[in-house]
Amino acid sequence: MAKNEVPTVAPVKNFKVPGFKASGISCGIKKTGRKDLALILSDTPAECAAVFTANKVKAAPVLIDIIRVKKGVTRGVIVNSGNANACTGTNGLLAAKRMTSAVEKSLGLKTGEILVSSTGVIGVPLPVEKVEKAIPELLKNLDNNGLHSATEAIMTTDAYPKKAVARARINGKTVTIAGMAKGAGMICPNMATLLSYFMTDANIKSPALNKALKTAIDASFNSIIVDNDASTNDTAMIFANGACNGAEIKANTPEFAAFSRILNDVSLKLAHMIVRDGEGATRFIEIDLTGAASLQEAKRGARTVAESQLVKTAFFGGDPNWGRILAALGRAGIKIKEEKVSISFNGVPVVKNGLDTGNEDRAAKALKTHDVKVKIELNIGKHSTRLWTTDLSYEYVKINSAYRT
Amino acid sequence: MAKNEVPTVAPVKNFKVPGFKASGISCGIKKTGRKDLALILSDTPAECAAVFTANKVKAAPVLIDIIRVKKGVTRGVIVNSGNANACTGTNGLLAAKRMTSAVEKSLGLKTGEILVSSTGVIGVPLPVEKVEKAIPELLKNLDNNGLHSATEAIMTTDAYPKKAVARARINGKTVTIAGMAKGAGMICPNMATLLSYFMTDANIKSPALNKALKTAIDASFNSIIVDNDASTNDTAMIFANGACNGAEIKANTPEFAAFSRILNDVSLKLAHMIVRDGEGATRFIEIDLTGAASLQEAKRGARTVAESQLVKTAFFGGDPNWGRILAALGRAGIKIKEEKVSISFNGVPVVKNGLDTGNEDRAAKALKTHDVKVKIELNIGKHSTRLWTTDLSYEYVKINSAYRT
Repeated sequence: MAKNEVPTVAPVKNFKVPGFKASGISCGIKKTGRKDLALILSDTPAECAAVFTANKVKAAPVLIDIIRVKKGVTRGVIVNSGNANACTGTNGLLAAKRMTSAVEKSLGLKTGEILVSSTGVIGVPLPVEKVEKAIPELLKNLDNNGLHSATEAIMTTDAYPKKAVARARINGKTVTIAGMAKGAGMICPNMATLLSYFMTDANIKSPALNKALKTAIDASFNSIIVDNDASTNDTAMIFANGACNGAEIKANTPEFAAFSRILNDVSLKLAHMIVRDGEGATRFIEIDLTGAASLQEAKRGARTVAESQLVKTAFFGGDPNWGRILAALGRAGIKIKEEKVSISFNGVPVVKNGLDTGNEDRAAKALKTHDVKVKIELNIGKHSTRLWTTDLSYEYVKINSAYRT
Repeated sequence: MAKNEVPTVAPVKNFKVPGFKASGISCGIKKTGRKDLALILSDTPAECAAVFTANKVKAAPVLIDIIRVKKGVTRGVIVNSGNANACTGTNGLLAAKRMTSAVEKSLGLKTGEILVSSTGVIGVPLPVEKVEKAIPELLKNLDNNGLHSATEAIMTTDAYPKKAVARARINGKTVTIAGMAKGAGMICPNMATLLSYFMTDANIKSPALNKALKTAIDASFNSIIVDNDASTNDTAMIFANGACNGAEIKANTPEFAAFSRILNDVSLKLAHMIVRDGEGATRFIEIDLTGAASLQEAKRGARTVAESQLVKTAFFGGDPNWGRILAALGRAGIKIKEEKVSISFNGVPVVKNGLDTGNEDRAAKALKTHDVKVKIELNIGKHSTRLWTTDLSYEYVKINSAYRT
């Protein structure tokens, strides 16, 4: 697959969820005139849950959402792209609140019923009056098919909109989960802000929703590495409005498992699209690590390999350089016995019991693909993990060294 | 300064130490025919101390040295370049021992009196017979002025040999410390193996020597970041043969402080040379972080900034992108209050109390230099640190993605 083509996931048909409307318009924050303002709105109050950036430097909208989402109920979220409203101090907090109250007032909602996200350049005051002026048009465009426009409006340097939808029969009703995401664009935003929103018509309360979301995010957005930086704005939210009219899905039931499964599926699809669209990415690399002493050690080991500049540049060059992987594992701070480690690239064993297998030529040939599977067997414990990353290319350096103008 | 020119440190005159001989020759490991075998030899048994890689995957010579150095006395070290003798299993250990015993036998020394290092490609058997055949020539070339040749022989892709020397009057005698290092070459070795050797004629015992070495390495080689990878072979050694005939330098005395000062000086000079010679480096970046809650947090914060791909690419592009620095600090896992952080680039304040100063144009102009000073004030505690790193350039990607042939 060529770089930044839309990946070969199933085409998104019926990208809509009963009881949700959305819109995406241009309000003039982006100089290009592209869409930069989105609204996702539930017809009725929706149960909600969210996961935010672990970065201690949090953007203004994140600080506001953290408080509002505690109520567990919301009507929706307004999102702008082109400006992150991060590192903007007290004025940034006021601007974020003005974004939400503009929507709340127009719709006759109470203060706090709308959430807010921003993505884009850091440290520049948000031109909130542009948002306020555009509210009538934003509301006018609300539509059951509006998730497509909304997905476009949250993009920054994403090469394509990222959306996925899945349905399942649960409690005798068809439950839909639609998800949208943006990320991996780093020219205008200062890092790869990840925003994702999940809309479902399931009947599920906030605590269970929270549990399902955390599990899904951990295995998807928290298992991908484009660069090693966590943004000030990273946000994942889920809204459940119960419009499917099914019985309540309670935690730790088979119904919950079914719900969780489709949420994981949607979330993982979006996360993979973000990796494939990674700045300058020419490879989609899966790191599959098994046999670690603990789950935490499995994750730390895989992450250290995935984050290594030397590993990433080797993959860019198609070099089956297993020494760099072994060395990354060695400095990961995990239990490792060199003489027990085995490594393969796309099925070709390159290290067996810590030693070269002599398969370098075969491995080099096997690496002439866009998608690369790295299998690492530590063979000292029972814990495993998988994560996904990109290579490190000239293009990455070009994009990220470009002066922001 | 243009890339990879010899940096403007004081020219190395009198790069020799009383009572030490050295030589550097070609034994045929490097296909280019360049020097690849070095010997440093003290005329008499020398007190010694060493610091080795923290990587759990350790090369064969490191495993041998760790045991031998415990005796605290050695006659010297044999070093080959062109092959790291790492990830080579039991045969690798045998090969490393054969290197040392070849020297020991020829000189009538006991087993274990010579140490050994290797640097170069990982996972390939060391052609130890080439080393053995070259021993007569290696010994024939031993000379009081041989440190120059030895420094050349430990190079891999280093653009220039790295050497420094300092002298001080201690206990009424002139004490010399000479240091050599190699590093930052990553084409042939799989990562930036750092080797450094310090020779001194001071009268100082192994435990005190060990203390001085650890302090010096911590503030120099452990405070530089070229990539984020720690090699399987990293080694720093110091040999003290007492040839200055001074009184013993004991730990925690003014004489020890004087000794430590010149060792730190030599070590820091070598470390800076390694950063300046970093693969593809177009900038020499100093991160000066103050006001952290603890020394450990200061180091972790500075390191997270220095290791960020987004920070490094921004510096390559001359972009005064303080948002990336603030975000890196935010995810460093240290105490930070956004509203207290100040940042300057080459003296131009870009962030004050967490907010943009509006000095972007001035900062961009100030960044048009090879040497960049980044000052970060956290303003929450009393601890500070300094470290040095490079930018991340096209050339870095080119060099490190090149297939090893």
